[in-house]
Amino acid sequence: MEIAMSDVYEATERTVPTRARERASYDRELVHSILDEAYLCHLGFVRDGAPVVLPTLFARVDDHVYVHGSTGSRPLRMAGAPDPGLPVCLTVTHVDGLVLARSAFHHSINYRSVVIHATAHPVTDPAEKRAALDALVDQVVPGRAEDSRPANPKELAATAVLRLDLTEVSAKVRTGGPNDEPEDTELPHWTGVLPLHTSYGPAIPAADLDASIALPEYIASR
Amino acid sequence: MEIAMSDVYEATERTVPTRARERASYDRELVHSILDEAYLCHLGFVRDGAPVVLPTLFARVDDHVYVHGSTGSRPLRMAGAPDPGLPVCLTVTHVDGLVLARSAFHHSINYRSVVIHATAHPVTDPAEKRAALDALVDQVVPGRAEDSRPANPKELAATAVLRLDLTEVSAKVRTGGPNDEPEDTELPHWTGVLPLHTSYGPAIPAADLDASIALPEYIASR
Repeated sequence: MEIAMSDVYEATERTVPTRARERASYDRELVHSILDEAYLCHLGFVRDGAPVVLPTLFARVDDHVYVHGSTGSRPLRMAGAPDPGLPVCLTVTHVDGLVLARSAFHHSINYRSVVIHATAHPVTDPAEKRAALDALVDQVVPGRAEDSRPANPKELAATAVLRLDLTEVSAKVRTGGPNDEPEDTELPHWTGVLPLHTSYGPAIPAADLDASIALPEYIASR
Repeated sequence: MEIAMSDVYEATERTVPTRARERASYDRELVHSILDEAYLCHLGFVRDGAPVVLPTLFARVDDHVYVHGSTGSRPLRMAGAPDPGLPVCLTVTHVDGLVLARSAFHHSINYRSVVIHATAHPVTDPAEKRAALDALVDQVVPGRAEDSRPANPKELAATAVLRLDLTEVSAKVRTGGPNDEPEDTELPHWTGVLPLHTSYGPAIPAADLDASIALPEYIASR
């Protein structure tokens, strides 16, 4: 018998926003879909009492998120030993459109974001570390991990991987058009949404690429 | 006689990266260009000893950056009175391409990022506040502020604006192709860069837009 995971994450004091609560969601599938469409996150931690926010790659595997870096980098060093770990906030944001209202006040953006509060711990199990590194490559380009040389022992030793558990997490989503005040409807300003799209390519082969190696479909199809 | 501003920001202990120092820059023009191409940032602050990272809009005006929000939102409330302000880290990242190396280890992304360490203070001068709100609209769509209804006194009172000074700030940039190990050159994997582009449109008019109002050029040209 399968043990079903809950469909929603439990809301906590810090995952319930003070503003626009109707945009917040704890739906597991929504959270995963927002994370899975991204590969870049902004990772926050506290250093000497002050906040630090760095862009970094991440990967989701089930209900964990992995980030990696040089064993010499600050957050990796600060996470240090498995206990007590490093308190972090990992945030992922997609911008889907610019919302141009008639009033400056009601300008907004359509977006989907996920905010994870967690304690990051270094991954010490070699098999989990290898799987996490594969996931980090596949999060950027699905299918790429098996079409590249895996990390060798020296590279593995130089790379630290941190794991965060997805427990205290929320999504926030804004969709739709502007919400102008009724008294502004007659104003002469264009109003609506300017959608934003991200696209890839054309691929630029490395200067030393053997010309007989064709662009794989999993890259070309992006 | 004009007093020239320094062309570079002064490096500090926390703006010198522990890794990939050759990618770091304190060049004022570069920092400004990365900020000016963006409108979304990730703002980090510390709450109850733990980091919080939230996506939010921002605007740069000279050597200041402004963020805004409801007077009820957490960072705005926490910045509170002008003294002592709220220590923040404001980070902006553009992803320019996916770097696919032959080895998993050398996968990377091409990016341009700016990290600002600062103490955020609420803007109390009404003229500066109005100018900052205009700048926030114009950062998203240049030219839009003068083609929208300015905030009225009630909206101004409901909106808090925080100012950060651009003093402790650095940029980090990665460009170019993969940096594979010489011994990997013969591996049979495609290698190169997959550039990433962001585009806008077509614009979606609001349902109640007067059909006689055409899409302005400053929007159509995006």
